[in-house]
Amino acid sequence: MINISIIGSGNVANHLAQAFFENKLPIEYIIARNEPEGRTLAKQVKATFVSTHQPIVFHQTNMVIIAVKDDAIEEMGNVLKEVNIPVVHTSGTKSSTLLKDICIKTGVFYPLQTFTKGKNMDFRNIPIIIDSPDVALVTFLKDMASKISDKVVQLTDMERQKMHIAAVFSNNFVNHLWLLAENYCHENDLDFNLLLPLIEETAEKLKTMSPFHAQTGPARRHDLKTIAAHLHLLDVHEMLRTIYKIMSDSIEQNY
Amino acid sequence: MINISIIGSGNVANHLAQAFFENKLPIEYIIARNEPEGRTLAKQVKATFVSTHQPIVFHQTNMVIIAVKDDAIEEMGNVLKEVNIPVVHTSGTKSSTLLKDICIKTGVFYPLQTFTKGKNMDFRNIPIIIDSPDVALVTFLKDMASKISDKVVQLTDMERQKMHIAAVFSNNFVNHLWLLAENYCHENDLDFNLLLPLIEETAEKLKTMSPFHAQTGPARRHDLKTIAAHLHLLDVHEMLRTIYKIMSDSIEQNY
Repeated sequence: MINISIIGSGNVANHLAQAFFENKLPIEYIIARNEPEGRTLAKQVKATFVSTHQPIVFHQTNMVIIAVKDDAIEEMGNVLKEVNIPVVHTSGTKSSTLLKDICIKTGVFYPLQTFTKGKNMDFRNIPIIIDSPDVALVTFLKDMASKISDKVVQLTDMERQKMHIAAVFSNNFVNHLWLLAENYCHENDLDFNLLLPLIEETAEKLKTMSPFHAQTGPARRHDLKTIAAHLHLLDVHEMLRTIYKIMSDSIEQNY
Repeated sequence: MINISIIGSGNVANHLAQAFFENKLPIEYIIARNEPEGRTLAKQVKATFVSTHQPIVFHQTNMVIIAVKDDAIEEMGNVLKEVNIPVVHTSGTKSSTLLKDICIKTGVFYPLQTFTKGKNMDFRNIPIIIDSPDVALVTFLKDMASKISDKVVQLTDMERQKMHIAAVFSNNFVNHLWLLAENYCHENDLDFNLLLPLIEETAEKLKTMSPFHAQTGPARRHDLKTIAAHLHLLDVHEMLRTIYKIMSDSIEQNY
């Protein structure tokens, strides 16, 4: 029987708690610094709220998930001191043994997705990357993860870190290109919304073809005239010009 | 009454012809260098195929659309020499008067989208950017475009070029980041498919929030430790390292 307590009340904590709750995995405590957010979440998933300032006495919990920002994991872990229950965090980068001073059984439970407050997601489709130096805990984590997701993968710390780098390129940098495009549109009195169908289709294409085959544009077809014209127009934008140049060079290197 | 002939048999020609056909705009000729492709398209849209080597005699056509690659527009325009019918091209960058030696009435009919062969698209949602120095032709183009799309916009050559630059960032460069992520996964024996739900959600988010608010990741939260760890892992990848650095710098500048 799995019984979970979650530390945190942010996006990841919310989405994980909802997913466990919807799949009928009981949650004993929501432990959070932010009382209003923690209480709201606890109520939603029929758990008891505990402030991080209070002493915590676990009754049913056999798995604690620390779902907070990377920099706060260790600090939050300290509220658990001398508790002998396995503890995992949800970070893409931090070591699976980060919490080894808090508990002898530690690990990782990293959902590979970008979460938005208030937006429901189909967790079955979200990859969950797990790991632990403890073989029995790996089995437990696989079991727990498979209750909410169909894509459970065990990766080493190094593999997960590299996957996180690939995620930064695929998500963070991609979103930033859209911000650059939006800013450029605004500066030139152009309507960024006109680009939304193109952006949607750009992602849609990946469902049926690899990015290698989906590539189009001036750099893909070695259209040096258009590239030169674009760089000329970007003369007044040092950052955009630099990014345009490096991305075009990188595309040309691949074809 | 609008009656169209289209020069070209590639992606843009195919999608435009289908959209006109579905919206009951008659197409007299499909004019193409590639005979099998041209004949197939002509058949699909109940038009007559004409090879670019044959002389063309227009009967009903009052609008010729040259839907070929930028570098081939002028060459294809030459098959029309001394024909007194308005001619437009579908380029994001070329001048609206590029074809002024072929016809006194010239313009642009640029659908802002990335097209994939064999994949049907909802054209009503695709912005069509039009322009012409001829006021009557602008009216005609607006009318024609609005038969297939709900988003018809008149932009100057300069505005359209800038929109094209924004499209290169939003589509071409974004797709290339996905290729870089895919290559990096393959090199490290990681499954790129695990990133697909994240990629889908990255684009999905833009439907409900601006890229400024959607931004997450190490650079967004000024997490210098993670950035340093990632750059260290990318030491062996000069191009990835350069792109990681410039994109992170650009994100940090915006927050």
